[in-house]
Amino acid sequence: MIKKVLIANRGEIALRIIRTCREMGIKTVAVYSTIDRDSLPVKFADEAVCIGPPPSAKSYLHIPSIIAAAEVTGADAVHPGYGFLAENAEFARVCDDHDLTFIGPRPETISKMGDKSVAKETMREAGVPVVPGSGGAVADVAEGLATAREAGFPVMIKASAGGGGRGMRMASNEAEFEKLFVAAGTEAANAFGDGRLYIEKFVEEPRHVEIQLVGDGQGTVVHFGERECSIQRRHQKLLEESPSPVVDADLRERMGRAAIDGALAVNYRGAGTVEFLLDKNRDFYFMEMNTRIQVEHPVTEEVTDTDLIEWQIRVASGETITSGDRAPRGHSIECRINAEDPFRNFSPSPGTITAFHSPKGRGVRCDTHVFAGYTVPPTYDSLIAKLIVREDTRERAIRKMLRALDEFIIEGLHTTVPFHQQLLQDPRFLAGDFDTKFLERFELVKEG
Amino acid sequence: MIKKVLIANRGEIALRIIRTCREMGIKTVAVYSTIDRDSLPVKFADEAVCIGPPPSAKSYLHIPSIIAAAEVTGADAVHPGYGFLAENAEFARVCDDHDLTFIGPRPETISKMGDKSVAKETMREAGVPVVPGSGGAVADVAEGLATAREAGFPVMIKASAGGGGRGMRMASNEAEFEKLFVAAGTEAANAFGDGRLYIEKFVEEPRHVEIQLVGDGQGTVVHFGERECSIQRRHQKLLEESPSPVVDADLRERMGRAAIDGALAVNYRGAGTVEFLLDKNRDFYFMEMNTRIQVEHPVTEEVTDTDLIEWQIRVASGETITSGDRAPRGHSIECRINAEDPFRNFSPSPGTITAFHSPKGRGVRCDTHVFAGYTVPPTYDSLIAKLIVREDTRERAIRKMLRALDEFIIEGLHTTVPFHQQLLQDPRFLAGDFDTKFLERFELVKEG
Repeated sequence: MIKKVLIANRGEIALRIIRTCREMGIKTVAVYSTIDRDSLPVKFADEAVCIGPPPSAKSYLHIPSIIAAAEVTGADAVHPGYGFLAENAEFARVCDDHDLTFIGPRPETISKMGDKSVAKETMREAGVPVVPGSGGAVADVAEGLATAREAGFPVMIKASAGGGGRGMRMASNEAEFEKLFVAAGTEAANAFGDGRLYIEKFVEEPRHVEIQLVGDGQGTVVHFGERECSIQRRHQKLLEESPSPVVDADLRERMGRAAIDGALAVNYRGAGTVEFLLDKNRDFYFMEMNTRIQVEHPVTEEVTDTDLIEWQIRVASGETITSGDRAPRGHSIECRINAEDPFRNFSPSPGTITAFHSPKGRGVRCDTHVFAGYTVPPTYDSLIAKLIVREDTRERAIRKMLRALDEFIIEGLHTTVPFHQQLLQDPRFLAGDFDTKFLERFELVKEG
Repeated sequence: MIKKVLIANRGEIALRIIRTCREMGIKTVAVYSTIDRDSLPVKFADEAVCIGPPPSAKSYLHIPSIIAAAEVTGADAVHPGYGFLAENAEFARVCDDHDLTFIGPRPETISKMGDKSVAKETMREAGVPVVPGSGGAVADVAEGLATAREAGFPVMIKASAGGGGRGMRMASNEAEFEKLFVAAGTEAANAFGDGRLYIEKFVEEPRHVEIQLVGDGQGTVVHFGERECSIQRRHQKLLEESPSPVVDADLRERMGRAAIDGALAVNYRGAGTVEFLLDKNRDFYFMEMNTRIQVEHPVTEEVTDTDLIEWQIRVASGETITSGDRAPRGHSIECRINAEDPFRNFSPSPGTITAFHSPKGRGVRCDTHVFAGYTVPPTYDSLIAKLIVREDTRERAIRKMLRALDEFIIEGLHTTVPFHQQLLQDPRFLAGDFDTKFLERFELVKEG
């Protein structure tokens, strides 16, 4: 069993990992950049080692400094958290080379899932649904049309060399396909000097729904249900919940089974997340797999009574999984509290927190590394707290979250608290009726 | 349904009640003494009314001021919390007279359970086990011996007029009974001018185990399992847990059934607790019934996924109970963090808190009204926080509690944190092997 874990991260996730290690009787080593010297993970870890100044390239991303810190302190394992080196196969390999247990998947799994086309092909071969289409470029309009027919309309016609919407068209039916195909090809040729096109089914009203799983790398993978993550702004999640308001036991079982099949195909070891697009017909398609713990993991922990960090450590230690999938009990929501001004286009709002009171009480969890007097540096991401609630039902969870947000005191900088307060009262949100484009249409009301 | 609740209390329980009211969409009125002006309940309630200076007789116990505050603010209900007026039948009656819903039992129930001998007789009639014995004084040694035989040895011989251990003897068997009876009678006559004696079975190695219940006053009472409260110092509970390490499903069902029978005998309305002595033979005996919410209610909430304050409000509003008893899931422990110096005989340690960080993370709840800069007055009880954990098993809960206690930062005054840290590592505590006398023998090690 692992005896001492070096945490190659900072902020709330570093503190989160320290807590579980303490409960497991495992010693911890925090590493920190000069700017994080007075942070809570540094205070609460058993040991702490400064690994350099910001920016991250000189500290949290600087592999030799982290390995040296592990060797100096006698750590026998490394937890990468999320972000930074968490999905860096090279780092996982260097840890292996230094006899440090990397608490995450094997390097080759990280590589494979990190290459989006390889990941997609791996999943397709494992029988996991991927967005139907041609895969590569089609030879001509006839092949394009045949592919579109098979995938089912509407379809997207996309430039193989493309990006930024150029050379892209949506065809709703066969009648308009040829005209749009030709136009897209011309536009692509002009824009990229490459007129090749590929066809992909258009996923209507897509929701981002992801499956949490853990594999032991010894033939067993279990899933912990889904997280609803459609509340996104520019692909940044702002609020997550479990279960999803649109996923029932049958769909959960099917998505969970698909995620497990995909993970088994790479004999997955560690905690991982399979992200799906779920369309309005309740069909789902693989997007990508994240080979690490995720920011939003607490909502799964709350509804499944699980410590996912503990599971990560156990399977990294070589333990096998003996229990099965866990169905959700009740409902959990997480609001990401960022140091950003939601009324100024979510612009970063670093600075010193002059007053801080975190919400408390039954069913309220606040994972945070900040405190009164803490200075949020402009250097790292803007997440300062994750406010998580758990209740019997979604409706009760929403009311509890509103209560908790009301109770949150953070002075000295702007936060996303007012955004969440308005979102949680929006009729469409309350009805569970939203997709990944929801926030594009959501209008924040400036408070008087 | 209740629309606005006046909370006739202070400290953590006032804040606790505000939280549930907010989640239920009920407005709140805090009342406060001049010394509590800057407290969190005052800050978080919708309205706040000063009801006078300390001591409590002039504010939190001053019924006319509280009724006036309710009338001024238009409150339609009063929650008394615990302590202060919570078990004052007169206060409940005055609330009724002013058309204020008293969130608690009817005045006559409070009266009946408040008179210990009436309560005991009521329970005995309802078939609830009470400590066997003579009830009143016995006529002579022959009747005493007959009673002792029926109750079963060992028995206590006690002076009817007694107290302080005088005129009291423990008789282990028939052979020694007569001699001890005579000696006790002589001693009682000398001490109190009254030589009458009564007989009571001696409860060996008693544990304090209590059943949480809620009744709707309309014929239904449900129970929420037990709390183990044997960790007491001079009858003050310091740590509580649920379930009890010695109560299994069968015993829980029998104790729960007895508690329900007792509550049904008075058509109980509200949350209540039936306290039992549980002896080493797993026989249990009624001690008393508390007709209010208790300090230690959160451990029950955690293992039964229940909001007991919400249940209080619902049954006070006239709702009937439709769901049944709830069995515990997992294990919960509460440590009472008092402003007391455990190394100086738990002497009070009021003062200003100069630094404060409450433990957080998965499965940790901290119910507290204090913050950095808050001054703990010498006026009220010394409870400054309730630290509550919830985990799958007792062993895991203990480890989580130790982690959470390590993380607690309270500077500026002494607290019971070091006491709990040592208690939670005691082999007998870990084994669940303790009774109400455990702390008399527990030796705290002064830390270097």
